[in-house]
Amino acid sequence: MLVKKITCSLPPDTYEIEISHGLLQNPIKLIQDLQSLDSIKSCSAFVIISDTLVKPLYADSLAKACKDLGLHIVQLTFPAGEINKTRSTKEQLEDQMLENAVGADTCLIAIGGGVTTDLAGFIASTYCRGIPLVLIPTSLLSMVDASIGGKNGVNTPFGKNLIGTTTEPKKVIIDFETLKTMKPKDLRDGFVEIIKHALISSSTFFEYLEEHPTKLLSLDLLHLDNLIAESCLIKVKIVLEDQQIKGKRNLLNFGHTIGHALENLTNYSLSHGEAVAIGILVESYMAFKLDIFDYPSIERIKNLFLKYGLPLKLQKKLPIDDLLHAMVFDKKSVKKRARFVIIEQIGTCLECDFHYCKAVDEAFLIDALNWMNQEFVEL
Amino acid sequence: MLVKKITCSLPPDTYEIEISHGLLQNPIKLIQDLQSLDSIKSCSAFVIISDTLVKPLYADSLAKACKDLGLHIVQLTFPAGEINKTRSTKEQLEDQMLENAVGADTCLIAIGGGVTTDLAGFIASTYCRGIPLVLIPTSLLSMVDASIGGKNGVNTPFGKNLIGTTTEPKKVIIDFETLKTMKPKDLRDGFVEIIKHALISSSTFFEYLEEHPTKLLSLDLLHLDNLIAESCLIKVKIVLEDQQIKGKRNLLNFGHTIGHALENLTNYSLSHGEAVAIGILVESYMAFKLDIFDYPSIERIKNLFLKYGLPLKLQKKLPIDDLLHAMVFDKKSVKKRARFVIIEQIGTCLECDFHYCKAVDEAFLIDALNWMNQEFVEL
Repeated sequence: MLVKKITCSLPPDTYEIEISHGLLQNPIKLIQDLQSLDSIKSCSAFVIISDTLVKPLYADSLAKACKDLGLHIVQLTFPAGEINKTRSTKEQLEDQMLENAVGADTCLIAIGGGVTTDLAGFIASTYCRGIPLVLIPTSLLSMVDASIGGKNGVNTPFGKNLIGTTTEPKKVIIDFETLKTMKPKDLRDGFVEIIKHALISSSTFFEYLEEHPTKLLSLDLLHLDNLIAESCLIKVKIVLEDQQIKGKRNLLNFGHTIGHALENLTNYSLSHGEAVAIGILVESYMAFKLDIFDYPSIERIKNLFLKYGLPLKLQKKLPIDDLLHAMVFDKKSVKKRARFVIIEQIGTCLECDFHYCKAVDEAFLIDALNWMNQEFVEL
Repeated sequence: MLVKKITCSLPPDTYEIEISHGLLQNPIKLIQDLQSLDSIKSCSAFVIISDTLVKPLYADSLAKACKDLGLHIVQLTFPAGEINKTRSTKEQLEDQMLENAVGADTCLIAIGGGVTTDLAGFIASTYCRGIPLVLIPTSLLSMVDASIGGKNGVNTPFGKNLIGTTTEPKKVIIDFETLKTMKPKDLRDGFVEIIKHALISSSTFFEYLEEHPTKLLSLDLLHLDNLIAESCLIKVKIVLEDQQIKGKRNLLNFGHTIGHALENLTNYSLSHGEAVAIGILVESYMAFKLDIFDYPSIERIKNLFLKYGLPLKLQKKLPIDDLLHAMVFDKKSVKKRARFVIIEQIGTCLECDFHYCKAVDEAFLIDALNWMNQEFVEL
């Protein structure tokens, strides 16, 4: 079994992202490997958090392995879905941990998609002021995005991830065999972030994605392995270059200023990937209107999204005022003005004095949002 | 006006603790000084959090100063009392911030006692994944303890500060004029932590406290200034020596393993200081029973607490089992066994292989708790 390892050195901590297939088929070894880590070896209890869907697929066997190894294990679940990524779910899970009397010397293992890794990551960063965290992402989206970079959080009615922290895990374990249990709809959400990684940093990677949609969508292991590792590496590199979260990390937000607003206003009926794909196109259109990006490249991005099955559709025109208001909470916003990553070419974005994003006039932004309402709403 | 400054260098951040009197009498200058800080100058909004008691005393004039300076200011309050240091209060305050549409470029100013600085500090560390925080402690306890070292948090029914983070502020402003509005009962809570600082690190400071109770309790400014600075310095020094929170910081927990359990079991009818004072005496008794500490020194500590007005009384005997259970969540506990700071002499504690605390047999612990129930319960 070939195992790829990416080392993330974020002083004072260093941790590994381990990428392979079949890792979850040997849960005993997986847990024993974790126990050999300095940050985990003194833990007297393990908590495994998954949603109700992932529980029978992967969490139960991990919990059984812990039991077989004689460990004190607490297994917790919450109802699947972005709608449950809330402070209330966090509180309920915390209370169950407290009822089970697990203390500061507890290792929290999160297994599942981005909702689970974000929610459990936030719990780990505040339970007893911080306990060791292990992430086992099982969706493509969480493998290449949510589980890398330490950002966690929960949603509020005002927007996504508004309450959370940035806390690195002690280990990330990616077993891409788990992708086989994903629905195609969820799989394409992951491809959107992979395409975004290509757009902000590698035209070669973008071309690779253009060439292999069929093989990648059919989860051809030979290609998948490289794809995930390459995509993780792009994100890790940006995270390591911007440890103080002052600039370059903003690139990772390409398409998300608009995307998060769309998720919020559609009450999450649009998936993260569907929303961000439209967001990427609208933000690319803004770069085009600024005479920085060319229109044929927008078409090229659009075609790639279509190849990977993205619908690129809005049910109805969205109110411009509501969209503008939803962007106030975007983490890049300054003085309530949204800022946008500006794509220059496929593979590069503007540095903008090391902010890697810039504010635009409201009239200009409204023009782009009107374009979106025309371009993506079916009549 | 003499201003003392202590610099806390905790890479990648450095911040100052400013100690003086009368700082709050010039709120415009105070806010302008904050605005000159690199970490705050780009903030487009200020949020001031205080409890209902501190609001009219100090928070209102700060908020007015912000308004006079033309700043976007949101002033929030919550009902005073340890009982309100909860996840629910945190959520309510967060929602008010979200309703006011303040984003990631907001500076949060917490003004009040330890409940306020802990609660607002936790909010600042998770709002939009972290916003700049300024602490203005107005109680003796929060000046010398809660506002130093970055620890924040809220209570749950299972115990104190079980959910929180360790996040440093951008500045701490101590104006000891505010002590004049404190009740003597609250003032003595602060003296308990000051006495604790002396016990774990300076016999000279302990002797100073023995010599000047009258002047200190009457808030003689000449003495107070030194007292607060010296006490802050002791805590800062320990925090800086143990930035990874791996060992030496445990010293700051002397008396708190028992103290927190007492607060919890008396439903906070015992104040933090009253509980910790008894905790210090019980934990000193444990050191005595281990043949490490001498009995006359316990008497000396007890006399000092009495001089500073501590009642050293429990209303009734507390059930040993409940006490043991409450200690499971103590942050020093390992494998559900509580660990204790062991005092050696007044001014020094055992290093215990750089853990600065050690586990004891349950029977030994029960013996100490029985001693407590005899020593401090009035018949």
